[in-house]
Amino acid sequence: MTDLEKSLFTKIDKIPIIDPHSHIDPHKPAARSLWDILSYPYYTSLSHSSGMDPDRIKYTVPDDARARAILQYMPGFASTAQFRWFADMLTDFFDLPADISADWNVDAIIDHCESRLQSADWSAHIKNVSNIKAVFTSHPLKDDLDGIDLNFYIPSLRVDDLVLSFESKEVRARLIETTDIQVTNANSLRLALHKVFDRLTRYNLAACTTSLPPDLSLSFASETKIDGLVAKATRGDFFTPEERNQMATFTLFELAQRCQEHQVPMHILFGVIRDVYDHGVINGTDLFDQRCSLVELHKLFNAFPNVKFPVSVISHAQNHELIAYAWIYHNVYAQGHWWYSNLPAFIFDDLCARMHSLPANKMIGYFSDAHSLEFVLPKFRMYKKELAKILAREYVTGLNWSEERAIELAYDILYNNVVELYGLRFEG
Amino acid sequence: MTDLEKSLFTKIDKIPIIDPHSHIDPHKPAARSLWDILSYPYYTSLSHSSGMDPDRIKYTVPDDARARAILQYMPGFASTAQFRWFADMLTDFFDLPADISADWNVDAIIDHCESRLQSADWSAHIKNVSNIKAVFTSHPLKDDLDGIDLNFYIPSLRVDDLVLSFESKEVRARLIETTDIQVTNANSLRLALHKVFDRLTRYNLAACTTSLPPDLSLSFASETKIDGLVAKATRGDFFTPEERNQMATFTLFELAQRCQEHQVPMHILFGVIRDVYDHGVINGTDLFDQRCSLVELHKLFNAFPNVKFPVSVISHAQNHELIAYAWIYHNVYAQGHWWYSNLPAFIFDDLCARMHSLPANKMIGYFSDAHSLEFVLPKFRMYKKELAKILAREYVTGLNWSEERAIELAYDILYNNVVELYGLRFEG
Amino acid sequence: MTDLEKSLFTKIDKIPIIDPHSHIDPHKPAARSLWDILSYPYYTSLSHSSGMDPDRIKYTVPDDARARAILQYMPGFASTAQFRWFADMLTDFFDLPADISADWNVDAIIDHCESRLQSADWSAHIKNVSNIKAVFTSHPLKDDLDGIDLNFYIPSLRVDDLVLSFESKEVRARLIETTDIQVTNANSLRLALHKVFDRLTRYNLAACTTSLPPDLSLSFASETKIDGLVAKATRGDFFTPEERNQMATFTLFELAQRCQEHQVPMHILFGVIRDVYDHGVINGTDLFDQRCSLVELHKLFNAFPNVKFPVSVISHAQNHELIAYAWIYHNVYAQGHWWYSNLPAFIFDDLCARMHSLPANKMIGYFSDAHSLEFVLPKFRMYKKELAKILAREYVTGLNWSEERAIELAYDILYNNVVELYGLRFEG
Repeated sequence: MTDLEKSLFTKIDKIPIIDPHSHIDPHKPAARSLWDILSYPYYTSLSHSSGMDPDRIKYTVPDDARARAILQYMPGFASTAQFRWFADMLTDFFDLPADISADWNVDAIIDHCESRLQSADWSAHIKNVSNIKAVFTSHPLKDDLDGIDLNFYIPSLRVDDLVLSFESKEVRARLIETTDIQVTNANSLRLALHKVFDRLTRYNLAACTTSLPPDLSLSFASETKIDGLVAKATRGDFFTPEERNQMATFTLFELAQRCQEHQVPMHILFGVIRDVYDHGVINGTDLFDQRCSLVELHKLFNAFPNVKFPVSVISHAQNHELIAYAWIYHNVYAQGHWWYSNLPAFIFDDLCARMHSLPANKMIGYFSDAHSLEFVLPKFRMYKKELAKILAREYVTGLNWSEERAIELAYDILYNNVVELYGLRFEG
Repeated sequence: MTDLEKSLFTKIDKIPIIDPHSHIDPHKPAARSLWDILSYPYYTSLSHSSGMDPDRIKYTVPDDARARAILQYMPGFASTAQFRWFADMLTDFFDLPADISADWNVDAIIDHCESRLQSADWSAHIKNVSNIKAVFTSHPLKDDLDGIDLNFYIPSLRVDDLVLSFESKEVRARLIETTDIQVTNANSLRLALHKVFDRLTRYNLAACTTSLPPDLSLSFASETKIDGLVAKATRGDFFTPEERNQMATFTLFELAQRCQEHQVPMHILFGVIRDVYDHGVINGTDLFDQRCSLVELHKLFNAFPNVKFPVSVISHAQNHELIAYAWIYHNVYAQGHWWYSNLPAFIFDDLCARMHSLPANKMIGYFSDAHSLEFVLPKFRMYKKELAKILAREYVTGLNWSEERAIELAYDILYNNVVELYGLRFEG
Repeated sequence: MTDLEKSLFTKIDKIPIIDPHSHIDPHKPAARSLWDILSYPYYTSLSHSSGMDPDRIKYTVPDDARARAILQYMPGFASTAQFRWFADMLTDFFDLPADISADWNVDAIIDHCESRLQSADWSAHIKNVSNIKAVFTSHPLKDDLDGIDLNFYIPSLRVDDLVLSFESKEVRARLIETTDIQVTNANSLRLALHKVFDRLTRYNLAACTTSLPPDLSLSFASETKIDGLVAKATRGDFFTPEERNQMATFTLFELAQRCQEHQVPMHILFGVIRDVYDHGVINGTDLFDQRCSLVELHKLFNAFPNVKFPVSVISHAQNHELIAYAWIYHNVYAQGHWWYSNLPAFIFDDLCARMHSLPANKMIGYFSDAHSLEFVLPKFRMYKKELAKILAREYVTGLNWSEERAIELAYDILYNNVVELYGLRFEG
């Protein structure tokens, strides 16, 4: 990084983090063991990919042995961005030296870290070092949200299962249990979805979130047809592909209707194909098909002009479509850099193209997708470095912007736009 | 930009502009009001996207109020390349300070610019400052071309409607009116297309231009079948998708036949999907589907080996295909950076890959797609800056080329190749 | 290049070359005339593309006249990476000045080079200057491998024809001739494939290699159905598309089974469409369709968890998929930069993204695809320059790695991983 890039990064790094999508458990936000960190699918899948026997991390193995297995394989992917997140944690949270990766000592890391993780104020330590203002948390139907700090943890309703897996007995049972509504036809399903929304709005629901597969075809069916599909699923019969699309479309549009009523944005994570790899470790079996397009979603975006749709894409090749959609549609936003496209090389290219073409308020910079608080800072910093480079090269140097003006734009992309889009209100 | 990049840019900037595709009206080439400039769909769509109520620019609103609405929303997209074009106009044509975007005063801009635009020599002023040698203009059937300066305005025949919308009563009526031929079957359609071409060749027709949708499937039908389709359309019946493809294929190939006879290149703009967004402003409703391929067009390129096909693609992901096609096919050329891929980030990547792989004479550098003369200079300069960077980094620094040699290559890409491909002859 | 980039390149350039995919003929590894070099399809297709009459290189024309034709058109693509390979040969092997392209004298080049090529030790000269440790060679069924230096030439079995063209009488005849097995049903085909493998393992077979088209759909058929397809092909009848897929799937999976038994990796070159361009020069008619996905191959990767699959893709847009697959699948590797994606601009982007995300041992850096030894060095150097840039920017500067550590990573990517993946053992 040049001096200018470093100067901009330092200033951007001071922007408090609001993280608009994570899987952090508000009841256990930080890690309590190295395994809590190293079980992140990025590490289990990379260790497996580089040669680790997956039996070394199966459920019957004690957590400390599982952590040791991952640590042993980490030098094999020390050149990756994913490794960097952990190396940064070791430096920033555990006070280990910055060049730890050059002299990797598994025993020393374990000894040093496991005891630190037991400290009573670990979670506060992470929050403090990371300068996190708020994180969104993801909740399917039944999570207990009582007693959590709603000024810090901002709930989003995660609806993948409802949209995509109505055939699953478990999913239907959970819906009924949560809502106390017997779902027997289109209308009772609609009422149940109402109730799910109503319940969460008591906790300041900020988003309704769903991932969608690349082959989803939005297909509209009559109320009678949906009645029949609910009955069919209840009987335990499987849908045809067309019926599956009809059911998903019905639920997705009902949820979008609720989003409209409650003025809640619908965050779409687009393009993943689940369970492709038969021999993968847990959460290391999903991939994507680069032949995917947002074009099918125009029916959704057009049908709900008053719902805001932040969209994240899994495939780098789709970034250009996302740009065109967020440029033209008043209600589509480009949000963050998801999963397989969450690498510095792609972030730089994708973000630079977004900044060259999108109104500032249509960009929601970044989200962590973290499973525990430790990941928020290193992932945001990875993004902030690429942002600093772009601001330095394209704006301060390229267009003679002042550094102050560049930082204002960074502040919009990372902070103000999240507050505005999701209607956040902080107390105190 | 480094000193070398600046030096190369300064030299490239001196190359007179020949703009091989625009929508400039030769009878009213320059703007006469700010609204003439700000009604460019890039600005109306970005203003709408960033929050402007579209009613503020509807037809019943006076032009000055519409211009004001756009100007008020422009700071919201001041980080975009599209904004830069306007900011550069303010500096280069209106003599406002270069840092105007940092201190945006709508009233001051309106006061200053509207009066300047009334000056009698405004159009000559733009031409002079821009150093434009010639611009291509786009003409569907009926435009009046008498009395225009054919040494400056170079007509191309725009045939989207003929190829894609034969079902439209208006399109057929315009064809009949222009040609005085009653189109009742394949043969009379063929004769009408002959006459359209013949008419324009009197004005030194340089190109036949059509945009094509990504899902066009070239499908050949018998003369009898086409007779039936002409009759069907005349009765007011709609085609099946297959019939639509058959009709489009017939017309496209007939036009390619005329291109061959008249030695006129066929310029193809590939990949747009029209009218996707229901709530968009005018000309702000078209998008693309990144799942598109030039592979369908091999039937066209193979069938007419003596017709030259400059091709422009809307999707950044398709640039690699365009490269492979222009590399292998002797009659396919990579032309410019169209619409959604006309951003500095994409231009740099796409052009660099073209220069790494294509013969110099297969690259047609840039076209403006401008609606009025004011856009030609800032858009060409955006391109020329990226070209200068690539020449500096990859050729002068990377391969020890002299600056002179690099500028010769730029001259070929921007000027000589356009003259050669389109067979231009300038008088005087 | 910066000083750091140059320093790293110089060190990387010292790594002996192991080239894991080429078309070099071990019985005639180096060129004996300029035409042997200039007949490389990259040069014939670019010359044709830039305007050369293809008749100038047809078979009846003497080789020296054909070489002259190409040389005359080369200045037209002097800005390409493909030209650079030849310019580097002129400097590195023929001792012509480095700025030869600035003062291109066809007669002088011919006079100088043709005589040099007649020197008795030409091939040893190339090997020596190039520092090649070993090159893989590609063998369909019948090649004679006796007497070649198996410590330098490492055979791979090329199976495109067997997998994709069983309908071809010639292919079947060659299979029968090689194996002495009458192929009349699924089982005798299986036995013949066994024998093909067994024969080559005597020569230290290192890989089984096949290119696959983007539209291959893996489709499983019963033994009885395959019996019928073998009979159908033998009768001279053509397959339906579905039958073609079934036959290809059967053969591909049988070969993968042999790979598993013999612990031989299967190298897949994915995405080419053959014979698209009707008027192209030889080997200048193949293209690709960017709408292609590795997703179909998950059936293969899942079915053979003990077979290693290095995969190369033809389309830049597919690099992201390749990354995701090599990241998740323990048995998929990202190998090199194939054909249309083998350009510096794409190599930099594709390799940078791989290094940001893949375990070091999942990257097989580069292969030459060369037809004669002269191409190995300039193509590897093109790659090594991009690798040096990435190591300098992202690792030494970006992460404070020592140069030594960066070079170790380069050594793994270019050398150790090839040895390990393909199980190479060098004698002496």
